[in-house]
Amino acid sequence: MKKKFVAEFIGTFWLVLGGCGSAVLAANFTSEPFIGIGLVGVSLAFGLTVLTIAYALGRISGAHLNPAVTIGLWAGGRVEAATVLPYVIAQVLGGIAGAGVLYVIATGNGSAIGGFAANGYGEHSPGGYDMTAAFVSEFVMTFMFIIIIFGVTEKDRAREAFAGLAIGLALTLIHLISIPVTNTSVNPARSISQAVFVQGWALEQVWLFIAAPILGAIAGGIVYKNVLRKTEFLPEDRHE
Amino acid sequence: MKKKFVAEFIGTFWLVLGGCGSAVLAANFTSEPFIGIGLVGVSLAFGLTVLTIAYALGRISGAHLNPAVTIGLWAGGRVEAATVLPYVIAQVLGGIAGAGVLYVIATGNGSAIGGFAANGYGEHSPGGYDMTAAFVSEFVMTFMFIIIIFGVTEKDRAREAFAGLAIGLALTLIHLISIPVTNTSVNPARSISQAVFVQGWALEQVWLFIAAPILGAIAGGIVYKNVLRKTEFLPEDRHE
Amino acid sequence: MKKKFVAEFIGTFWLVLGGCGSAVLAANFTSEPFIGIGLVGVSLAFGLTVLTIAYALGRISGAHLNPAVTIGLWAGGRVEAATVLPYVIAQVLGGIAGAGVLYVIATGNGSAIGGFAANGYGEHSPGGYDMTAAFVSEFVMTFMFIIIIFGVTEKDRAREAFAGLAIGLALTLIHLISIPVTNTSVNPARSISQAVFVQGWALEQVWLFIAAPILGAIAGGIVYKNVLRKTEFLPEDRHE
Amino acid sequence: MKKKFVAEFIGTFWLVLGGCGSAVLAANFTSEPFIGIGLVGVSLAFGLTVLTIAYALGRISGAHLNPAVTIGLWAGGRVEAATVLPYVIAQVLGGIAGAGVLYVIATGNGSAIGGFAANGYGEHSPGGYDMTAAFVSEFVMTFMFIIIIFGVTEKDRAREAFAGLAIGLALTLIHLISIPVTNTSVNPARSISQAVFVQGWALEQVWLFIAAPILGAIAGGIVYKNVLRKTEFLPEDRHE
Repeated sequence: MKKKFVAEFIGTFWLVLGGCGSAVLAANFTSEPFIGIGLVGVSLAFGLTVLTIAYALGRISGAHLNPAVTIGLWAGGRVEAATVLPYVIAQVLGGIAGAGVLYVIATGNGSAIGGFAANGYGEHSPGGYDMTAAFVSEFVMTFMFIIIIFGVTEKDRAREAFAGLAIGLALTLIHLISIPVTNTSVNPARSISQAVFVQGWALEQVWLFIAAPILGAIAGGIVYKNVLRKTEFLPEDRHE
Repeated sequence: MKKKFVAEFIGTFWLVLGGCGSAVLAANFTSEPFIGIGLVGVSLAFGLTVLTIAYALGRISGAHLNPAVTIGLWAGGRVEAATVLPYVIAQVLGGIAGAGVLYVIATGNGSAIGGFAANGYGEHSPGGYDMTAAFVSEFVMTFMFIIIIFGVTEKDRAREAFAGLAIGLALTLIHLISIPVTNTSVNPARSISQAVFVQGWALEQVWLFIAAPILGAIAGGIVYKNVLRKTEFLPEDRHE
Repeated sequence: MKKKFVAEFIGTFWLVLGGCGSAVLAANFTSEPFIGIGLVGVSLAFGLTVLTIAYALGRISGAHLNPAVTIGLWAGGRVEAATVLPYVIAQVLGGIAGAGVLYVIATGNGSAIGGFAANGYGEHSPGGYDMTAAFVSEFVMTFMFIIIIFGVTEKDRAREAFAGLAIGLALTLIHLISIPVTNTSVNPARSISQAVFVQGWALEQVWLFIAAPILGAIAGGIVYKNVLRKTEFLPEDRHE
Repeated sequence: MKKKFVAEFIGTFWLVLGGCGSAVLAANFTSEPFIGIGLVGVSLAFGLTVLTIAYALGRISGAHLNPAVTIGLWAGGRVEAATVLPYVIAQVLGGIAGAGVLYVIATGNGSAIGGFAANGYGEHSPGGYDMTAAFVSEFVMTFMFIIIIFGVTEKDRAREAFAGLAIGLALTLIHLISIPVTNTSVNPARSISQAVFVQGWALEQVWLFIAAPILGAIAGGIVYKNVLRKTEFLPEDRHE
């Protein structure tokens, strides 16, 4: 478990440093005539953090990098209950560490962190979407994310080697759709890591970005297990 | 068939929520200094919906997600006639469900849906292209889409595992070319799902986005079968 | 050979319709608030035409889609001399057919084709680069393109299945670098197809976009064969 | 070793010509109404140089293309000490050759090279980030780059064929995050190649872009070897 803990810690560190980092440092970079990376670049960055860690460290821990994913995989019977807590702890700590390094870099030109890359709804939604829209968006996006994760990791498929690609690009897709709604979470560790530094409204609203992704992931796990699953699988078959 | 029906329903739900959703929510997002995802982002999003579902649920239903694809595969002898109707029903219903969820999210900041992501020609073409140009564009794009789908799914190839990647990116490519012409359909289920919510002109013009993709797909299926096909295949060999 | 001829014709048709089409129809699309696909989108589109055809029709003809590639592969000993002429004819005809369909669509909103997506140097270089810079750019880009094509298609490698991905993305990369210099050719069939419709200056300058890519490809083929090649190979081993 | 030397030379030539070339020629290209490739395009270009060379020439030399990578692989026990010096020489010379060709093209429209694509901190950081932020950014980015490279190249994995994809896209990700901070190096050969042409401040600051990437890579190699490595490996098993 120690190796798995380190892999989840480093992986979520990278997800936050890379995904949130691209948003904070490069999304709106406007030193003319440079064109910042915009929402497309941030969407790519989040997806590529998962893609790269999935291929690099997936053999060790499965590269969940996300408490909602770990809990959803448990709900669908792919992960043992005993795995959940240590994975979630590693993910939350890794995310906060990534946010810390980002804080050191981002403040290195004298600017304040402002909203960092925190998630929000209502007046803190990038596009002014209300709490209901935010909840629906986070729930459905995480639901589909888990369906995809289950589908691409079925054990007996030649295409299993493409899992890291498909899961990473699924996260890119989710960001292409929903950044304007909530700044996109689908990942409580990512949301907590930013809220810890922003404080105030970000901490007050972070409950939604814990609850909606986890509930969406549980629903996805249950649907996949009961409707779409190909074969019986045992949790202990999951990792090498 | 029940499992296949669910897979096509969920897949087309995702295609519409993800592809049209990125267009409606994020394409023109302009809360300064944010840069929206633009046509590149929408093109990526449509392609990634197909890529992710192809790897996740392709083993179940083949991940057509598109009545024109199902009919084109039938025209080329890759799918049995009895498959067509249930697949098309699942796709149209899934698309409408995706549009419904998108409606709930998109109106969550008080804005009207306007043209949603409906397809159009003449004055409803994003770039003002007339009906002939629109028909030619939809016909040729779907023709090539089907040629590519047939080619990458030939059974006896090591490269078959790349089918989901190639088909998804083919859809991205088609959008990179033709969004200004018709907002890009090549998929009657996608077009119907938006027209149902927009009503009016969108319903009046939707015939073109049913007819042109289906005719293009049938033509592509016939050409592939008679000129490019490698080996005889039986429809029942297609899925696991 | 008939099947190969058709595959090269359709493939180059797609390269021109997709690559040049994205440039003509969508690159600078500015119906506010839409953001056109810009140079990134055009670069992606060119690469994806090759990627999709490589996986779809590569087993038939090798998916050269480019006279410089066919000639470079011959120079490096990978293709028989008898293959060159029919392939080049299919490519040039397919490219012109693609340009013809693009003409029909592009003029469907009443606009003139202007410079279409023709290649040029001097005052017809997008960034005003002179003939020498244009020649060096086209020569070096095609040289590297051929080196990559040879490398990724070595017969005895597990990674050979990635050839279509790597070659397609190599073309994307080449466009990301050199569109401002020459509008990027590295492909005489692509350049001829546009010059035929633009006439005038485009026909006067098209010699450079025939000569430089072919010379670069020959140089690349010779270097690969003599310095980098892994094993002896016979041309007839190339295709299935 | 001669073949390996040539492969590293050509590969780093391509990394600098393609990555720095896209930045110099196309990033800020503003001949209206063209939209330049921006930071997203440059990030893609750097990644695609590595991806294409990894699949094309990786079987020959491993496609390091970067002194920090070679040294980090040595620190982690994956490369023999005798390999380091010749690889680094090939990389530095190849990078300078790439910068030379870029110089010829870039000055072909009469413009000066300005800062080329040199790396810098303080007043030469694109976003005005100080030396500490620059050092932390380069150190951490290279640390993670090496962790990913080690992980995806573990010998006994079906997913090893995806190494070129994952490593290339890791470099894209690193650029998406950190161009505003230092113009992104993580590669001393890339930094030296630009500083040689820019002279002055670029040469004065180049020490940081030699030291930080190499130290980050060494740290990454040590961490991977001691915490994450799957099995014992011998350097001589690495290449075919």
